[in-house]
Amino acid sequence: MKNPSLTCTRCQKEFPIERVHPRCSSCNEPLEVSYSRLQPSPGRHGEWFGLREGTLLERYQEFFPFVSIHREISLGEGDTALLRSSVAAGELGMEKLFFKNETQNPTWSFKDRGTVSGIEHAISLGMGKIGTVSTGNMAVSVAAYGARAKLETYVLVPSGLPKEKIGPIAIYQPHLIMVEGDYGELYFKSLEIGEKQGICFINSDVPFRVEGSKTIAFEICQQMGFHPPDYVVVPVSAGGNLRGILKGFEEFHQAQLIDRIPKMIVSQANGCCPIVASFEKGRESVERVLNPRTIAHAIENPFPPSGNQVLRKLKENGGTAVRVRDEEIIEAQAIMAREGIFGQPAAAVPLGAVKKLLAEGYLKSTDSVVCIVTGGGLKYTAALEYHSFNVRKVGIERIEEVIRLTDGE
Amino acid sequence: MKNPSLTCTRCQKEFPIERVHPRCSSCNEPLEVSYSRLQPSPGRHGEWFGLREGTLLERYQEFFPFVSIHREISLGEGDTALLRSSVAAGELGMEKLFFKNETQNPTWSFKDRGTVSGIEHAISLGMGKIGTVSTGNMAVSVAAYGARAKLETYVLVPSGLPKEKIGPIAIYQPHLIMVEGDYGELYFKSLEIGEKQGICFINSDVPFRVEGSKTIAFEICQQMGFHPPDYVVVPVSAGGNLRGILKGFEEFHQAQLIDRIPKMIVSQANGCCPIVASFEKGRESVERVLNPRTIAHAIENPFPPSGNQVLRKLKENGGTAVRVRDEEIIEAQAIMAREGIFGQPAAAVPLGAVKKLLAEGYLKSTDSVVCIVTGGGLKYTAALEYHSFNVRKVGIERIEEVIRLTDGE
Repeated sequence: MKNPSLTCTRCQKEFPIERVHPRCSSCNEPLEVSYSRLQPSPGRHGEWFGLREGTLLERYQEFFPFVSIHREISLGEGDTALLRSSVAAGELGMEKLFFKNETQNPTWSFKDRGTVSGIEHAISLGMGKIGTVSTGNMAVSVAAYGARAKLETYVLVPSGLPKEKIGPIAIYQPHLIMVEGDYGELYFKSLEIGEKQGICFINSDVPFRVEGSKTIAFEICQQMGFHPPDYVVVPVSAGGNLRGILKGFEEFHQAQLIDRIPKMIVSQANGCCPIVASFEKGRESVERVLNPRTIAHAIENPFPPSGNQVLRKLKENGGTAVRVRDEEIIEAQAIMAREGIFGQPAAAVPLGAVKKLLAEGYLKSTDSVVCIVTGGGLKYTAALEYHSFNVRKVGIERIEEVIRLTDGE
Repeated sequence: MKNPSLTCTRCQKEFPIERVHPRCSSCNEPLEVSYSRLQPSPGRHGEWFGLREGTLLERYQEFFPFVSIHREISLGEGDTALLRSSVAAGELGMEKLFFKNETQNPTWSFKDRGTVSGIEHAISLGMGKIGTVSTGNMAVSVAAYGARAKLETYVLVPSGLPKEKIGPIAIYQPHLIMVEGDYGELYFKSLEIGEKQGICFINSDVPFRVEGSKTIAFEICQQMGFHPPDYVVVPVSAGGNLRGILKGFEEFHQAQLIDRIPKMIVSQANGCCPIVASFEKGRESVERVLNPRTIAHAIENPFPPSGNQVLRKLKENGGTAVRVRDEEIIEAQAIMAREGIFGQPAAAVPLGAVKKLLAEGYLKSTDSVVCIVTGGGLKYTAALEYHSFNVRKVGIERIEEVIRLTDGE
């Protein structure tokens, strides 16, 4: 076997894989799953070019510590399209720009990968209860997969969450609890409650959610013929997804499936960019943002629990961190739609970051770059208010003429 | 080659494959693509069990008349999950109930399959303009793929379409035109304008949209190991999707890839069920519904242009047609969500139909049945108003206690 354990991302202290609490008892930094050996079975490498059978976890079982996979809990997550850009690439003068379209997942965001991995872990520990603390994509994903797996599912949301965000979570019928009080504190409190009451809280950056995000990197490698891109740009909130994607590239590198690791680019909204701010100042830890405010609500996390670890990994990886203003996010959302991809505002932050880094000369037009489109545009239709649309109105008798007149517009 | 042509579904009159107008010049019934030979290349059969490389049209090129496939117009459509039901199956006492989850397509509905096929056809004819007449899923899909393919794209919607439906179409930046007048007339008028002005109108049931829908059947066959189900239940609006799915099974049967063709079940909302009504009366043609009214707006078509052809095919196929009331649709939507699948109301109509047909004794609990989940629940969140949700509110200091109290609820 692969002898998996949980290791502190900061002090390297080891814990048994069965530990429920996802942070280090000494330094309170996030733990991650580590393996003593990562080598795919002989023959698998070739198969991977074509093989898409089975569920996401079955396809990559060798990179997970699960002895058996419960395929009945899968909703068909993963295997999302990697689309080559033409409109954005053309406007930016880039040759090799790609979008990894995570909006095709079962609940229309990347969260489903980490959720299925987290639930498989809960089942492997014999836990019949799961939960999460979230306001959006993750709440939806955990509610859906909890229903699928027939587990008691607790979704804790902040009081005051608008009704239009409640419905898409509540429809899956979890135990939905609105909590009044400090929402940041709830992240840590839920982990304590989880330990005491046997509830596996699959929060934003817990080790097995990070494991799920690895599969984004695995798929990018396969979709690019095992020649990974120069850069991968990720919208960063808690930090779990970026950590997972980088870990995926590192593990494929360790298994000698790829010969280099892409540089990671942290992209955040200017109105809430604790990681970028610390990176710019050369600091080793994040500071709480006091008045977060951005249209990219999905990444509006004022005190990211994996912020310090993202800073550590970014230094080691040699990537960078960049902030994008709301106007630039909206512009990027429109450009992506002009090539057929409708992402939520947070999912457009990477394209905004690419434009900025090209202008600054950090990126070259010949670099190959993959932007992670984390969630679908229907998740937050209020953002459509910020776009101006040209809608003509005509009587049916004039339609032929009007269409003729638009010709060549 | 496969010598494709367009054949009238009623009088069998033949037309060249290059014909732009999608209906018969003699009897005004829909045309469809016909092939003189359907036989996959040797060796392909085995590959299909595992092969998911390439785009949807590339994978099934032998079942399309396209000499070359433009893979750059693909947004990664198709290859959606076939999920085995447990919650609904359990409640209904069924053993083999499945959901084909079309909400994982790039614009979150099945329409993307027909759109990519329709655009490939337009390109093969050298046409640089496409269009559609639609209020919902199809408008979104055509706008997205038109953008992707960099074609002039005309989307005609009825005047009075609410703002929340406009934004998700307009974001892709097509020529969006609100037309005042008889909306049913616009379907036929757009086809005339298309012929005159060289615009390929990829409306609901045009031959190449129907061709795209075939791939739903192809995938179901592969996902079930080439043992297709006893029944396939489809929410029916214009009739194009049901026609395509049935044609897909027929072609796989003709190519000797499967040894039987499932029976098709037309499911419509009670408040707008012209096909079911004619089927019940044993009529050969549909009559216009005067006051259509249902929560399943996506299938609220009072005078389906492929209605007569659906009636003809249903008789030949031996399937049936069933109407489902709005309350039953909402109930079915909730049951599906309880196993992790959030479909729009129209997408829940098949499950409502299954429940009804079981009660009537038409279906047996041992039958294998696939329900087509046509579009995602975020498409029409107003439907969430009809559900009652249980949301608790607590202060953070009481959260631990409240979670303990829910235990075993």
